[in-house]
Amino acid sequence: MTRRAALRELLRAAELDALFLVDLCNIRYLTGFTGSNAVLVVSADGEAQTLLCTDGRYLTQSERQVPELERLIDRGSDTALMARMATSAATYRRTGFESHHVTVDQLDALAERGPGIGLVRAPGLVEELRLVKDDAEIHALRMACGAADRALADLLAAGGLRPGRTEREVGRDLESRMMEHGAEAISFDSIVAFGANSAIPHHRPTDAELRTGDFVKLDFGAQVDGYHSDMTRTMVIGPPADWQRDIYDLVARSQAAGRAALAPDAGVRDVDAAARNVIEDAGHGERFLHGLGHGVGLEIHEAPSLSKTGDGRLRTGMAVTVEPGVYLAGRGGVRIEDTLVVRAAAPELLTLTTKELVVV
Amino acid sequence: MTRRAALRELLRAAELDALFLVDLCNIRYLTGFTGSNAVLVVSADGEAQTLLCTDGRYLTQSERQVPELERLIDRGSDTALMARMATSAATYRRTGFESHHVTVDQLDALAERGPGIGLVRAPGLVEELRLVKDDAEIHALRMACGAADRALADLLAAGGLRPGRTEREVGRDLESRMMEHGAEAISFDSIVAFGANSAIPHHRPTDAELRTGDFVKLDFGAQVDGYHSDMTRTMVIGPPADWQRDIYDLVARSQAAGRAALAPDAGVRDVDAAARNVIEDAGHGERFLHGLGHGVGLEIHEAPSLSKTGDGRLRTGMAVTVEPGVYLAGRGGVRIEDTLVVRAAAPELLTLTTKELVVV
Repeated sequence: MTRRAALRELLRAAELDALFLVDLCNIRYLTGFTGSNAVLVVSADGEAQTLLCTDGRYLTQSERQVPELERLIDRGSDTALMARMATSAATYRRTGFESHHVTVDQLDALAERGPGIGLVRAPGLVEELRLVKDDAEIHALRMACGAADRALADLLAAGGLRPGRTEREVGRDLESRMMEHGAEAISFDSIVAFGANSAIPHHRPTDAELRTGDFVKLDFGAQVDGYHSDMTRTMVIGPPADWQRDIYDLVARSQAAGRAALAPDAGVRDVDAAARNVIEDAGHGERFLHGLGHGVGLEIHEAPSLSKTGDGRLRTGMAVTVEPGVYLAGRGGVRIEDTLVVRAAAPELLTLTTKELVVV
Repeated sequence: MTRRAALRELLRAAELDALFLVDLCNIRYLTGFTGSNAVLVVSADGEAQTLLCTDGRYLTQSERQVPELERLIDRGSDTALMARMATSAATYRRTGFESHHVTVDQLDALAERGPGIGLVRAPGLVEELRLVKDDAEIHALRMACGAADRALADLLAAGGLRPGRTEREVGRDLESRMMEHGAEAISFDSIVAFGANSAIPHHRPTDAELRTGDFVKLDFGAQVDGYHSDMTRTMVIGPPADWQRDIYDLVARSQAAGRAALAPDAGVRDVDAAARNVIEDAGHGERFLHGLGHGVGLEIHEAPSLSKTGDGRLRTGMAVTVEPGVYLAGRGGVRIEDTLVVRAAAPELLTLTTKELVVV
């Protein structure tokens, strides 16, 4: 499998005989296994010494999803796999482990069961591979973004944003429409915020009712094949007041500047700055409290971080969000967010819903 | 706050000056904070040296949910809190950390930022408190179980299990009905399995269509105030075949035996054995691959584990599932699961849907 072959190159470069994996997203990425419990050891030598361990609940599923690898079935999967590796310790003499995922206690338990196996810190190797998405991954992201776009279009067409409806009702409605459009799950707890609640960046839906004059901020996403979409749109119910139009336009300009800065080799801090400067120049810098965006894929938040403190540069094929916001406490806030793929010429937009101010 | 006071007693018993917490469920339990990023230090001395750190997204929310504690706002929350603690290191000289949640890399980063602070392994202290549920927790569990019961009743009443519907459709329908009945989220990805798929213990919904003669296995739950319900029911479409009735009756007898064994001071392995023996005596022991049950609360799976390898004894006020199953590969399987609270006289059943074989 291509992904495991790419990992083996990293293992050889790091002079590791194998990598012991506990992170379920990394394991899914490398094997396609979607169960809720598994550990995996990938040998630098090849497939024969590469083993998956899960428990009895996933006996049939692991056979179907990962027929090409040897599978162990054991409820204490991590220590059971290590004990099995210890029976041919020469193969796994220098084994990397995910020191950013393995807990302090777990490392002790593994070391105890793996005499003869040298456990070496090896954080982030699979995450490094996951940074740049392949075609299958981008396809899944496109399907996920499409489900969210269509759900929002349906919600608006059905009059789903009418005065009197509650945040909770709108959230449920949006989520069930995503499922109708092929989502296997929602990406994260939807943010549905009316009126002054829209000034709370991560507001959870309440029984607050929609009223004329309200901002409506919707931040939501769909999952398809394990990949997450992430989109925010802010609308207004009835004719917008001047202050609403002003901050909407400001955030829209900032978001466009952020998108325009997405290019191979751009520094992630520079992308953040490109969008942030627009808001700072308008005197609202202290009302944009969060980073500009984040990578998205098998996790809703992954590397890279587009923020003041982020590190590194963009590469073609990275999937990221661009989501500036301005929040006026007690009045209302606007955030506009897309999911995009970094491309050589111009970024590819995956969330296609209009970013003009929609007046409902 | 009572829960933090109870933790302080454990800290004093362990001769710790403080506990540094990274687990969001433990932090929610101790503070009521529901955001997706936080760390907390609880001082044995009292509230004044007890601090919560989260990031800018949760500025307003943390103020509202945790007004009684001092709050720091910093994107790099864990190291920022540790750096702040280092400015009064004498207060935190011997600080426990959650060695079962803190990763190997995170411990290094914390140690580097906390000169003068001795970091001591202290796994499971809050989990120990969480084992026995208080009245507010049991109330939330009851509401969550009630939402699931009502959703299933509605689904059946609306003819939701009719031939031709797909597993995905039934799953969505059930989930949206839970939300209508007050769930804030689903507890876990629903298991909806028709016919031979019911023999896969953790089957994910597909486009398979329901047919007369099928078993329908539904394993699903609702979340209310962060607490999870967990229930499985298996039904049959049309008159059951003899083999279906036989394994249903067998699993029902096993489940009743497991429930009957729930009592203060019962060993968790003995409870597992009480249910497992019924299935083993019928010659199906090797078709019951998983543990009998698990604790349930702020997490869908928590201690205690009712299984062959579980440790410890039940206590009054523990909330657990009892969920034996028999799975005949290629034909079909039955699992019956309740969520219950251990009580002195008899366990309190929280999932109230009938366990007689429902023929749709």
